[in-house]
Amino acid sequence: VDAALIAVGSELLRPGARDTNAEWLTGRLESLGARVRWRALVDDSTERIAVVTEALFGRSDLLILTGGLGPTEDDRTRPALAQALGVPSVRDPERLERLLRYFRDHGRVPSGSQARQADRPRGSEWLENPVGSAPGIAFESGSRLLFALPGVPAEMRAMFDESIAPRLRARAADPPARRTLRVAGRTESAVDEMLRDLYQQEGVEVTILAKPTGIELLLAASGGGAAEASSRLALLEERMSGRLGADLFGKDDDSLASVVGALLVARGETVATAESCTAGLLAAALTEVPGASAWYRGGLVVYSDDLKRSLAGVSEETLAAHGAVSAPVALELAAGARSRCAADHGVGVTGIAGPSGGTDAKPVGLVHMAVASPGVEREARFVFRGDRDLIRARAASAALDLLRRGLRGA
Amino acid sequence: VDAALIAVGSELLRPGARDTNAEWLTGRLESLGARVRWRALVDDSTERIAVVTEALFGRSDLLILTGGLGPTEDDRTRPALAQALGVPSVRDPERLERLLRYFRDHGRVPSGSQARQADRPRGSEWLENPVGSAPGIAFESGSRLLFALPGVPAEMRAMFDESIAPRLRARAADPPARRTLRVAGRTESAVDEMLRDLYQQEGVEVTILAKPTGIELLLAASGGGAAEASSRLALLEERMSGRLGADLFGKDDDSLASVVGALLVARGETVATAESCTAGLLAAALTEVPGASAWYRGGLVVYSDDLKRSLAGVSEETLAAHGAVSAPVALELAAGARSRCAADHGVGVTGIAGPSGGTDAKPVGLVHMAVASPGVEREARFVFRGDRDLIRARAASAALDLLRRGLRGA
Repeated sequence: VDAALIAVGSELLRPGARDTNAEWLTGRLESLGARVRWRALVDDSTERIAVVTEALFGRSDLLILTGGLGPTEDDRTRPALAQALGVPSVRDPERLERLLRYFRDHGRVPSGSQARQADRPRGSEWLENPVGSAPGIAFESGSRLLFALPGVPAEMRAMFDESIAPRLRARAADPPARRTLRVAGRTESAVDEMLRDLYQQEGVEVTILAKPTGIELLLAASGGGAAEASSRLALLEERMSGRLGADLFGKDDDSLASVVGALLVARGETVATAESCTAGLLAAALTEVPGASAWYRGGLVVYSDDLKRSLAGVSEETLAAHGAVSAPVALELAAGARSRCAADHGVGVTGIAGPSGGTDAKPVGLVHMAVASPGVEREARFVFRGDRDLIRARAASAALDLLRRGLRGA
Repeated sequence: VDAALIAVGSELLRPGARDTNAEWLTGRLESLGARVRWRALVDDSTERIAVVTEALFGRSDLLILTGGLGPTEDDRTRPALAQALGVPSVRDPERLERLLRYFRDHGRVPSGSQARQADRPRGSEWLENPVGSAPGIAFESGSRLLFALPGVPAEMRAMFDESIAPRLRARAADPPARRTLRVAGRTESAVDEMLRDLYQQEGVEVTILAKPTGIELLLAASGGGAAEASSRLALLEERMSGRLGADLFGKDDDSLASVVGALLVARGETVATAESCTAGLLAAALTEVPGASAWYRGGLVVYSDDLKRSLAGVSEETLAAHGAVSAPVALELAAGARSRCAADHGVGVTGIAGPSGGTDAKPVGLVHMAVASPGVEREARFVFRGDRDLIRARAASAALDLLRRGLRGA
């Protein structure tokens, strides 16, 4: 299945914008055996949306548009589709009634222009939106499929998974067998060097991605039927696992936080946090995992030195002797989190996120962290590169990884 | 100048890939007064490159292609351009001689396929490459310009700055005057309805974006010279400000947190947080602002009920009578943050982020929040839509906004 994507919205063409819908859809489509051959990003112009839709739809098995389905003046996907498909746009009275009811049920007053959302090209069908008010549009022409989805990521994703994925699955030949391996504590080039000889196999494709949360290895195996592809993938995964050892922290939808949570659940234990430079990021990352309340107790954000003392119990002497950004303070923060929050394990993080505050001895990016567990302490020191946001994100990930290694090794 | 960009290369369509050339070119073009209206990413297929080139070039003042100019079998931009422009591809003997000399001078042996790099569509000119071997291609048709550049970022950038930028500067009028207005506490369609009549002016362009952190209005004014565009923009901004009132929280690079920080700095005051469902997101958002330590004291993450009591001082009776997700608990969390962290203002947040834990009376998405300030308390209740991540992000933004309104009004 040759696929094409079109993202609609002037904002996507501004400097610094990212088409995150296409990033998500590309991965999802690959896992369903479809390959994105081309993509377009178009501003809110009916003419331009229609031109690219026409150019791409005629030469693709599948075209997905995202965005431009809202109720405002600059939502132009509906009229553009009608233009590209060469049919009139029609208003669906039943859909209009449903839209108005949706607004009443949610205690909102529909605007006059909400009625636009009941327009669709003649010959198309509606795609239900389980999350929001804007319905999507589906159109079939011979063996070719066209779908238009809202640009709001949560709505787009829900509609893809509920309405489009099943239709693709029904059509697909054997999709490639796929696995994502997730690695912490190593750089992209170190992972590449360690594993490179394993990539050079027929019928296997490996992509390495570096993210602030770690390295991702996207593995795909295809050819020779589903069973053969899947056993080739299993062998590749086994070889990579063997080389990566404890640095391989999970696969597919795992995150450092979900792996930490699973380890804590298995042990019937809990964790608490005390953060200075990451200031809540570590707590927020842990609690991204649904059900985190079973194993995450709570935490302290001790941005000022006096709170490091009063809330986390760091001693005046340690602060004076070593400074707030030091291994001893990280250790006392971890112990303080553990005791003040009555948890089995405590994590402490202290560092210099910048842009100012760095010195020669303690540069911007320096972060000390520690984990206090029953009868054992671990600590680590990093100098992270990047801007303030990236240093904080990398510090939170490294602290999760330090906790994970402790729970794993213990 | 309406611009279009095409990036050529199958690798750009893999999950996780980024078209960094387009990101760079978009910023460069805006600063030269050109606006990117559409973009495409195409794999290494002559047919597909030709189709998008033809669709975009006919309707743009300027089209820049990047990639596909190398010497290998899958470098297809040259034949695709000839196909799209409807002219034959011709080999330039003088350029071939220069290419071979370039390789000899750099001590490299040219491959047989290097000769391809001396091919260009009839009627086009060469663009010199000061950094590498692959020349670019320039084509003019009436007032429309087409350029094809190598995909290697260093070569692409050098060639743009040396050969394309001067030609655009010679043509360009004044770049548009731009401003971003940032709005909290209103939906996209409410803002659209309130302001729509102001968009319908000659020479003014308005884009509305909805993000978890609020609504963004991107304003641009152009035409009639820089001074006139800028005074038209100022008038538009003034009218919008008048209608938006306190919902307009900032402009351009402002964030809710940076505005809160500036208000606190102006008053010489500090703030602290006590979070349940947002679990550190509010603290992390406040401390994204460089220098936040001047006005952010710290916070408590009280995920479990017993920590709400022991760390934040919420009373057993309030918890028993109203439940953890209630206005009285939010108020006690705010007061607890204020007193335990010795801050002038305290913010408390408690809610149900889901996916489980909701009831009919207290559904997933219900969030209570409060701000405790000297002599005054404010509280608010929301039912946010979306998944766990979105509910938490929206709750953190709403809490920042509640704090901002309190600081502004006081």
